[in-house]
Formats: sequence, C-alpha cells, structure tokens
Amino acid sequence: MKKQRISDAVIRRLPRYYRYLDELHSRGIDRISSNTLGKRMGVTASQIRQDLSCFGEFGQQGYGYNIIELRAEIGRILGVDELRRLIIVGAGHLGHALLQNFDFIQGGFRLDTAFDISDDLIGTSVNGVVIRSMDELSDYCAAFHPVVAVLTVPKHAAQETANALVSCGVRGIWNFTNVEISVDDNIFVENVHFADSLLTLSYRISMAANQEKESP
Amino acid sequence: MKKQRISDAVIRRLPRYYRYLDELHSRGIDRISSNTLGKRMGVTASQIRQDLSCFGEFGQQGYGYNIIELRAEIGRILGVDELRRLIIVGAGHLGHALLQNFDFIQGGFRLDTAFDISDDLIGTSVNGVVIRSMDELSDYCAAFHPVVAVLTVPKHAAQETANALVSCGVRGIWNFTNVEISVDDNIFVENVHFADSLLTLSYRISMAANQEKESP
Repeated sequence: MKKQRISDAVIRRLPRYYRYLDELHSRGIDRISSNTLGKRMGVTASQIRQDLSCFGEFGQQGYGYNIIELRAEIGRILGVDELRRLIIVGAGHLGHALLQNFDFIQGGFRLDTAFDISDDLIGTSVNGVVIRSMDELSDYCAAFHPVVAVLTVPKHAAQETANALVSCGVRGIWNFTNVEISVDDNIFVENVHFADSLLTLSYRISMAANQEKESP
Repeated sequence: MKKQRISDAVIRRLPRYYRYLDELHSRGIDRISSNTLGKRMGVTASQIRQDLSCFGEFGQQGYGYNIIELRAEIGRILGVDELRRLIIVGAGHLGHALLQNFDFIQGGFRLDTAFDISDDLIGTSVNGVVIRSMDELSDYCAAFHPVVAVLTVPKHAAQETANALVSCGVRGIWNFTNVEISVDDNIFVENVHFADSLLTLSYRISMAANQEKESP
C-alpha cells in the first residue's frame, strides 16, 4: 500500500464504496465500471479512480472492477476482516435498537456483551448478547480487551463513562450521546450526529419549496 | 441569496456549522474568526469563507463572525425556523430512542404523533408524543400535512411504508431502515447509515495499529 496522508473526505467515502459494492455483490453482479459505480453513488468516475489510487492499483482499463476483489480489498483497508471485539455501554432504547438490528459482524466486530446499570436489564440477553452490570466492566475488559465501545448512555453519564472506558484500554468510542466527550489524542471518537442528517433533509425540502414558489 | 447550484459537500457542512455555532452560543461566546472556527471543526478558514459565500455576505474582515447572527442565518437557510410538522413511523426501540432523546424542535420540526402497528404501543405516549395506529395515518396526514416522516419500521416493512407515506403527501423521509427505498424524484430521502460511521472508526484504528507496528 502506498504511504501517504489520506484525506478525511476519502476516508468518509470508503465505507460508502464498501456498502455499494456489498449491495452489488449480494445482487450477483461481478464487475462494474467506475462510470456506473459513480452514477449510482453520485460521484464522478475520476473521483472513484482517484480515491482508490490512494490505496493501490485496482481495476483494469476497459474492464472495470471485479466487485468481489475490490470489496475484499476495501474491507481489508477498513479493518473489517480483523473481527475486533466491541462492547455496547448503555442498553436503553438506542442500545437495544443496535443490539436488535445492527449487523456488527458485517462491520467487522465481535459483540458478546453489553453493559448497563439497570437491575431490570442486567442478566438478560438480546439477540444472543448478554447484558452485564457496569461493575463488571473493568474485569471484562481486562480479560477480553474490547477495542471499541458503543456509547449509548444518557448525556449526563457520557464523559464519566468515556473516562472509564479509556482506563479500561478501549481504543475507539462510537459516540451516540450527542455530548462532545474529551479523551486523549490516542483514543478515536466517532460521533453520530443524527441532527446533521435531519438538517440536510430540511435544507433540501426548503430549497425545493423556494424553487416551487419562484417558478409557478 | 445568490442563485447558484450548491454542492453536496457544502450542504453537508452547513449542519455542522450550525451545530458548532449553537454550541459556542450556548457557552456565551459572541464572536469567532473563521480561523478559530475552522480549527475547531477541522476545516480551513478559507473553506468556511468560501462555503458561506454561497449564501451571501457574512462576517467583517478582521472582526470575525457574529455568532448569533450567523447561526440565525444558517438556521434560516436550513429551514429550521419554519417548524415543519414531522411524524415518526415505527415506535420500536429506535423510534422510542428518538422520541426520548432527540430534540426535534431544535432541528426545526414539530412532532406530536408517532405511528405503530403494535396494540401494546397504540394509545400510549412518549415524551408528550401520542402513538397512534397505522390505520389512522392517512386521516392524520390529510388533516395535518406532515412534511417529513421518520422511517423506523423493520426492514421488511420499509418500502411498503414509504409508499404509504408518499401517497399521504409526505415530502421527505428520514430513513433509518438500512433499506434503499425507491420513491419518486420529488421526494427527498435522507438515509442514516450507522455502518458508515462505524467503518470510519474501524479504519482509523487499523491505520493507527499499522503505524504502531511499523514504528516500534
């Protein structure tokens, strides 16, 4: 793999390539040109070729990309094949929704345990994942070294829980709390901001409504 | 406002500007330079100036931006001040999590009703929002004309529910189902892909781990 600084924009597009290739693969398609892939994804063919060139040589002029190979390669770049261990901290409604619906294996993560403070939840299991007491967090981490924690606790507990996770050796936090948590630079935090997505939708509807007003 | 085609990348950054300005405002800060704002957000000052110039003239050379004014203006561009009506369709765990934790008013939406098919949920209310039967959807829409629907139904019901919403006159669908729904071109669909976010985190951890291996 070439050594270079990969821009944030390219990094953000990689999972989208992976997702589209995955969908094409599941529909039995073997090969796709950068033109066709670009049209589906709303990016230009040259953008795709340029993005992928950051990671090596893919595809063959005039033949397009082999979907299985490209998907496997992007998966490898994304670390999907490492099947790292992940835990969910906070098994309220959002934690439950993820436990029930999200395919962590597909994302390259092993999940067997979630943590909560509620006596009603501790000891139950959802989709094969056991919910344990927060008191067991540090023992679990010492034994199993989870790499990523999904943070789905209430806002007021966000920073404190993040601190505990960092002390336990977690390297990445997938943060759903809408609180900007502060951690050491060597810990990766990926914030899920639902609001950004809704505001984008709001913007598009506004623009369309304005255009309709202006061109009756 | 200038008339021009605004790129998708700029549109995606607007909600982030809004969020940061909101946070600065709530911390009592009045004014910020594009340099400082850029550093916080991980974009360049010239990028900010260029993005905002798509929408008009903001800030004053050497004085930075007035946070309240800029936030209000971006909010207006995003349609936040229109307080459009929104409904939630599917009040399972994810629907509940949004009902309990998400600030729809802050995002510019009025929410008073959610819909579900479960008899256990119908007639209950969460955070002041009443859950009604799906059978009442079309009557409700005919009476109140919701502009946006949050789609939090199970995968298998995604397309069928989207069709029903479109027939009811909804203009935008905030889609959490991970199913690519197909609707007419004049309907806006904003997909929330949790997986993209987790894969980005996975990538960063992989890269860091590789670098640690290579430079012991």
